[in-house]
Amino acid sequence: YSLSLARAEPGCGVAAVLPAGGCGERMGVPTPKQFCLILERPLISYTLQAMERVCWIKDIVVAVTRENMEVMEGIIQRYQHKRVSLVESGVTRHRSIFNGLKALAEEESNSKFSKPEVVIIHDAVRPFVEEDVLLKVVTAAKEHGAAGAIRPLVSTVISPSADGCLDYSLERARHTASEMPQAFLFDVIYEAYQQCSDYDLEFGTECLQLALKYCHTKAKLVEGSPDLWKVTYKRDLYAAESIIKERISQQICIVMDTKEDEEHVSLLEEMLKNELKHVSVTSMPLCYAGRDLQQVILEQCYNFVCVHVMNFDFQGTQKLLSMLEESHLSILYPIVVVLVHFIDYNSVPFGEKMENLMHIRELAKEVKKINILLYGLLIYYPQADLKLQESLRQGATIIAALIKERNSGLIGQLLVA
Amino acid sequence: YSLSLARAEPGCGVAAVLPAGGCGERMGVPTPKQFCLILERPLISYTLQAMERVCWIKDIVVAVTRENMEVMEGIIQRYQHKRVSLVESGVTRHRSIFNGLKALAEEESNSKFSKPEVVIIHDAVRPFVEEDVLLKVVTAAKEHGAAGAIRPLVSTVISPSADGCLDYSLERARHTASEMPQAFLFDVIYEAYQQCSDYDLEFGTECLQLALKYCHTKAKLVEGSPDLWKVTYKRDLYAAESIIKERISQQICIVMDTKEDEEHVSLLEEMLKNELKHVSVTSMPLCYAGRDLQQVILEQCYNFVCVHVMNFDFQGTQKLLSMLEESHLSILYPIVVVLVHFIDYNSVPFGEKMENLMHIRELAKEVKKINILLYGLLIYYPQADLKLQESLRQGATIIAALIKERNSGLIGQLLVA
Ligand SMILES: [Mg+2]
Ligand SMILES: [Mg+2]
Repeated sequence: YSLSLARAEPGCGVAAVLPAGGCGERMGVPTPKQFCLILERPLISYTLQAMERVCWIKDIVVAVTRENMEVMEGIIQRYQHKRVSLVESGVTRHRSIFNGLKALAEEESNSKFSKPEVVIIHDAVRPFVEEDVLLKVVTAAKEHGAAGAIRPLVSTVISPSADGCLDYSLERARHTASEMPQAFLFDVIYEAYQQCSDYDLEFGTECLQLALKYCHTKAKLVEGSPDLWKVTYKRDLYAAESIIKERISQQICIVMDTKEDEEHVSLLEEMLKNELKHVSVTSMPLCYAGRDLQQVILEQCYNFVCVHVMNFDFQGTQKLLSMLEESHLSILYPIVVVLVHFIDYNSVPFGEKMENLMHIRELAKEVKKINILLYGLLIYYPQADLKLQESLRQGATIIAALIKERNSGLIGQLLVA
Repeated sequence: YSLSLARAEPGCGVAAVLPAGGCGERMGVPTPKQFCLILERPLISYTLQAMERVCWIKDIVVAVTRENMEVMEGIIQRYQHKRVSLVESGVTRHRSIFNGLKALAEEESNSKFSKPEVVIIHDAVRPFVEEDVLLKVVTAAKEHGAAGAIRPLVSTVISPSADGCLDYSLERARHTASEMPQAFLFDVIYEAYQQCSDYDLEFGTECLQLALKYCHTKAKLVEGSPDLWKVTYKRDLYAAESIIKERISQQICIVMDTKEDEEHVSLLEEMLKNELKHVSVTSMPLCYAGRDLQQVILEQCYNFVCVHVMNFDFQGTQKLLSMLEESHLSILYPIVVVLVHFIDYNSVPFGEKMENLMHIRELAKEVKKINILLYGLLIYYPQADLKLQESLRQGATIIAALIKERNSGLIGQLLVA
């Protein structure tokens, strides 16, 4: 009951509306950007995940076109999203938001929603929204009626004259970019949408402006982080993919067959820490009940190195893979598992070696189906200390590359350090 | 003398000034963003390369801080930039540009510059500028005195009141983002800088505004492409890296030892085309004088697949690597070379196999020094048709992965398809 353990909550009913009816013409690609795949998962699923993580957001209403309704239902099911409901989008962003608000406002006895006190409006294509900024806009909305995230302008804003020449340029210090999320007292924004003109519904873009114009509510502006940016162009998809890859590569867990392997493992651990600064590397034996490992999996570690010394025994590996499968962790992100074999190449007959290689390939193909990327790595052993260190350094470089790239084209390969 | 072959040129003396004195505080990293590495090369070098490609830009003046002068000289030397001169930057962007203009204006007999009719101003952190838009702004500047690239606004622009609340929001349709490049009649922009107030030099951001305010020159606005964006945040570096990798992965050249290998090669070529849509794949024998290959290298192909059938002969590979080294192509971008060996694993003694593996690793380490990334790929042969096809498909997937990621952690590895 310590105060510091109490999670900050806004203390009122909160729902969210995500307009996702866009058709992605800016991207120059046929797929609407909210459905573009990043690590094989649609962008909108990342945004939903970010919203769901926030336990005090009770309902999340997504507005999608009728054509995409089924696609969206499939996404919700496949990625096990909770608290998400769908409404049909309108032809403009404002009409889509209005549809979402209407669904939340329905006070009928059979309605699945209860009208929230505050509603968050967020874009389906801003996947990196944090609880922190959501709490800030909701709290500010409770006090001011409306609130929105802002960011400094990157470019100067100018106004062209009718002949395509510069008319005037705006003072950058006095202007700012309006971003998402925004939050409103439900009654304020709903009233604004009900009052607002068809022209506004067609051509307007700014919800804060509707609250100002129709309800005389001056929105509080809240400084947001750079990660709030809107995925708009193809380059933004590239950026989002790199950010996601970086985020799931912050932790590596080394598991070993038996306690006796500790010596090799601690050297490898050292090398990995050197290779990957800012990455947390832990190690533990697999042979016990696996509680520590369960904990690591619970804490959403997406990178495993499974060490075997002088054997090609796949039992430990199988156990790890089973635990990962049961955890359902790989539903959201691909998990990297690198099987490291310390082995004397020369004493292993070639036939046996190829057999083991084939086994890794088959296993890799199998677990790819549940989004686990499996690779093999051979480290020559025994070697003189200095040479072994060099091999381990090389091994760490290879493991780092596999984790960083998360490339499914190389699964099942047996690399040599 | 066909008209259609004449390259479009503005037909006047053109120079460029690139302010690069920034200290990168927005990025949240210690390195100023123009010096951040992408594929191990500083961002500013990509921008200089983009400007140099345009033959009618006679001088490129870069303004850098005194502390970075030596770093910048190193970059110019290492990446063999031509027509680039350095001046010291000022404490603000405007002062840096002014310093660049002053250098170009010096009419002394020993000056290395001749005063240009038109000057382009461009950011060091916009590496993807195309000749097309440069020509447009220069041509428009000749006619109007000033011109600049614009892009549609991505976010709504608002103005906060003193208490951090929304004062008003701007109509998005009537405003636009001012981007770079811009171009000016030299006398117009130089006059503007000479006239302009200290306040403008300190706090102004927009060159077009100076031309308007001090020379009554209304700049022509020219629609730019999305790629003109400014690398501002860490995510922009990620995006730039992905764009660069994509651009140098548009062409693959398969070279073969002897004409007799054509059959295998054409199957592999087919598979690669299937795997990598929109990528041009060509093939040619290495055994002749190598003229075709010279042509491919001249056209800046950065991806080579070197096929050997039933032998571990490295002569052909050596020849290709020598040609690549002589071309200096890899000064600007890493070149990927995949050595594909069609081989019967079972009939090759294990010792020989490990020896060859070691040879590839040594070779890879060697050519990494000149920015060539070498990988090995084994394809089992002979196999029944269907099985061989499956191996080739797998091989194409692996080659595609290696080219796409260009990961130096995996060089020297012998992959198996
Ligand atoms: Mg907006
Ligand atoms: Mg500007």
